[in-house]
Amino acid sequence: MDVKLICHTPNCQQVVATAARLCYSADDIDTILTKMGDKRGKKLILKLIDLGHQSPFEHISFTFGISGISRSLSHQLVRHRIASYSQKSQRYVSESQFDYITPPSIKKDEKTKKRYDQLMENIAKCYEELSEIAPKEDARYVLPNSCETKIVATFNARSLFNFFQHRMCTRAQWEIRLLSEKMYDIVNEISPEIFSYFGASCDTLGYCPEGTMCCGKAQTLEQRER
Amino acid sequence: MDVKLICHTPNCQQVVATAARLCYSADDIDTILTKMGDKRGKKLILKLIDLGHQSPFEHISFTFGISGISRSLSHQLVRHRIASYSQKSQRYVSESQFDYITPPSIKKDEKTKKRYDQLMENIAKCYEELSEIAPKEDARYVLPNSCETKIVATFNARSLFNFFQHRMCTRAQWEIRLLSEKMYDIVNEISPEIFSYFGASCDTLGYCPEGTMCCGKAQTLEQRER
Amino acid sequence: MDVKLICHTPNCQQVVATAARLCYSADDIDTILTKMGDKRGKKLILKLIDLGHQSPFEHISFTFGISGISRSLSHQLVRHRIASYSQKSQRYVSESQFDYITPPSIKKDEKTKKRYDQLMENIAKCYEELSEIAPKEDARYVLPNSCETKIVATFNARSLFNFFQHRMCTRAQWEIRLLSEKMYDIVNEISPEIFSYFGASCDTLGYCPEGTMCCGKAQTLEQRER
Amino acid sequence: MDVKLICHTPNCQQVVATAARLCYSADDIDTILTKMGDKRGKKLILKLIDLGHQSPFEHISFTFGISGISRSLSHQLVRHRIASYSQKSQRYVSESQFDYITPPSIKKDEKTKKRYDQLMENIAKCYEELSEIAPKEDARYVLPNSCETKIVATFNARSLFNFFQHRMCTRAQWEIRLLSEKMYDIVNEISPEIFSYFGASCDTLGYCPEGTMCCGKAQTLEQRER
Repeated sequence: MDVKLICHTPNCQQVVATAARLCYSADDIDTILTKMGDKRGKKLILKLIDLGHQSPFEHISFTFGISGISRSLSHQLVRHRIASYSQKSQRYVSESQFDYITPPSIKKDEKTKKRYDQLMENIAKCYEELSEIAPKEDARYVLPNSCETKIVATFNARSLFNFFQHRMCTRAQWEIRLLSEKMYDIVNEISPEIFSYFGASCDTLGYCPEGTMCCGKAQTLEQRER
Repeated sequence: MDVKLICHTPNCQQVVATAARLCYSADDIDTILTKMGDKRGKKLILKLIDLGHQSPFEHISFTFGISGISRSLSHQLVRHRIASYSQKSQRYVSESQFDYITPPSIKKDEKTKKRYDQLMENIAKCYEELSEIAPKEDARYVLPNSCETKIVATFNARSLFNFFQHRMCTRAQWEIRLLSEKMYDIVNEISPEIFSYFGASCDTLGYCPEGTMCCGKAQTLEQRER
Repeated sequence: MDVKLICHTPNCQQVVATAARLCYSADDIDTILTKMGDKRGKKLILKLIDLGHQSPFEHISFTFGISGISRSLSHQLVRHRIASYSQKSQRYVSESQFDYITPPSIKKDEKTKKRYDQLMENIAKCYEELSEIAPKEDARYVLPNSCETKIVATFNARSLFNFFQHRMCTRAQWEIRLLSEKMYDIVNEISPEIFSYFGASCDTLGYCPEGTMCCGKAQTLEQRER
Repeated sequence: MDVKLICHTPNCQQVVATAARLCYSADDIDTILTKMGDKRGKKLILKLIDLGHQSPFEHISFTFGISGISRSLSHQLVRHRIASYSQKSQRYVSESQFDYITPPSIKKDEKTKKRYDQLMENIAKCYEELSEIAPKEDARYVLPNSCETKIVATFNARSLFNFFQHRMCTRAQWEIRLLSEKMYDIVNEISPEIFSYFGASCDTLGYCPEGTMCCGKAQTLEQRER
């Protein structure tokens, strides 16, 4: 899996703090912009997070170039609707000799991995045969979930908070969890004054909201009451 | 493919016409509701369509139960973000002896179809073997795009207009085109006074907006100029 | 303020439970629909709420006809973006002799109320004078926030949960709080098996998420730790 | 009215073209990024516009600091739901001695303007009196639509296309038309290779989609048929 940041809004802290400050200030925008470039901006960000006032974080966004992921993952990813996607098309691009993802639980056993690789080879062969008779968009019906895809995805920070809460959680599948961790590391390096307060639900909220499905890493509210 | 309407907003014409009329009227809501139940409502709907004033159509929505479709199709479907989805999970539901979709271009040639069916059988066997060693969510990496899925999808009428424009177009893949036609037939039976004016882009706009990719069924604006 | 339900998705519990059950079941949609009409549906709803699994609640929606509210309120209301609105236009409908909202804090003091009413009268007079010279859309620049408006608003249940959390909170302004309470009462009567678990943030979550702005009605997480 | 660009996605053409190219290419993301920095990127942008393929334009966004606008305008502006807003609050910021917008149709006649200014003065006086008795959030009920506000607004390019089509149209009110023109000039200077193809509906589509409400600046499709 390869995740790279293609571009992002510059001066994240200043932009978010300016937008937030504007709501409660009589100052003009230039004055607010100047004031929010420094420590005061940082302090305001903290307050927004404490109050759960997340809308100002929508003003900054991040565009990721993601490759070496399975179509299983991409099908989960695009379910996050407050984001923009451009994905490699299996209708128009040939998947002859496609690369594929192997889950760790399969990779770890040599015999199982061999079985898996053989099936992938069979599928690839069949795909090529079908490609000669049927259009690519139909030949692809044999392609597996494991088939590699690439996608460009843009999220604003507020939508990322939601993405991290759900997908960095131990209940998420390993592959999208890995993706969310990589995305998190990238944005947290750019703007730790914002993202260091976020992560999986339990790291963000201080408790686990998953009820009876809680993994035990953190306590649910009910457990804490006892 | 099986598409059934699970539920929908009742009295579509009256609801849309009331919402639209409210914008331009000094009457109270009850009065408007009464007036819009009849011919005047129908006439107003026509005017909204003529003016391209689509927001009142957001007030009515339709919930479809869709089954017997491939994961290829569902991956395309959920890219429509102004809609709500609940889909059968391959992480939690076993796909042992899964059903699958066969594209017409493959089905029509007996030998090709046999090759396809054999591969599906191989995949199913491998899936079962993997399921004994790995969790379902990982075993599913071998499952093909053709694998059948089920999904409940809710669209408001405005989002349906957009869906129909793109997916009833000849450029859409056969499977999602079939789905969109079935969805169209269902809503058009319920509310022809609204939906009879919509369909593929060319049927809706009167010309083809697909530029150089136009299929020839209708003319592009450029072609009409000549 | 008058709030009436214009229409809504029928069989709320059954629709939500069916959508949710589909995700985890090998049954076909008709079978699930039948099963979810009874107690099992009710039990599943509870589980969804316990797990914070809110997406199935998007499949049901409610259309409200709202009148006798101020433009202050409507400006706040339309900030909720996951909803659909049709509002009486001040550009096209004359506001000659407009009705207006008087806040309780002004109404309670007779002298203050008189001052307020006089100003409203002055504004109405000026509006009429301007209407003779300028188009309605410009004359309306003198109209006050208190000016009554009407709006048709459609929310799905998930978006309503969010609306109730923020707007039934004591920190919300009295007018939108009143609106949210009326909307809540309406939907809770239709579907108490869903809505009885929701309300202001503190009633929904069991604690106050407003940090240092907490009103004291419930404790924040920090306060509960001590 | 003052509109300034607070920030924006850098390298607009390269980002959009890379996202679009990824859909149809077997190349890796770095290779595509490099290729799309030059003429090929520009050519691809043109093709996307010709085909009406707008989703790649969602990856770039623009954050505007807008001040010196009326609350009439801001109420219209926030109806565009695919955007993010942070607006000066009349609940928390005092509007003592508020500035206000005067429509040209009122400004042009001296006597009318005087009448308007006097009313504004009366309102301001009343607001101050009420502020001593009632909370700011209630005193503001007397404030007029003309009252100046400030707002930070973030749009992606696709949402801007929609905004320009509707709000640069002669049917839009003068104030939001002026705003949209200023926003257009700003983004068109940054990225003319994208925005020069957009504007009011008629400038974008080549015909007027407003049916019987057409201003005559361009022809409707029906008129062109004749």
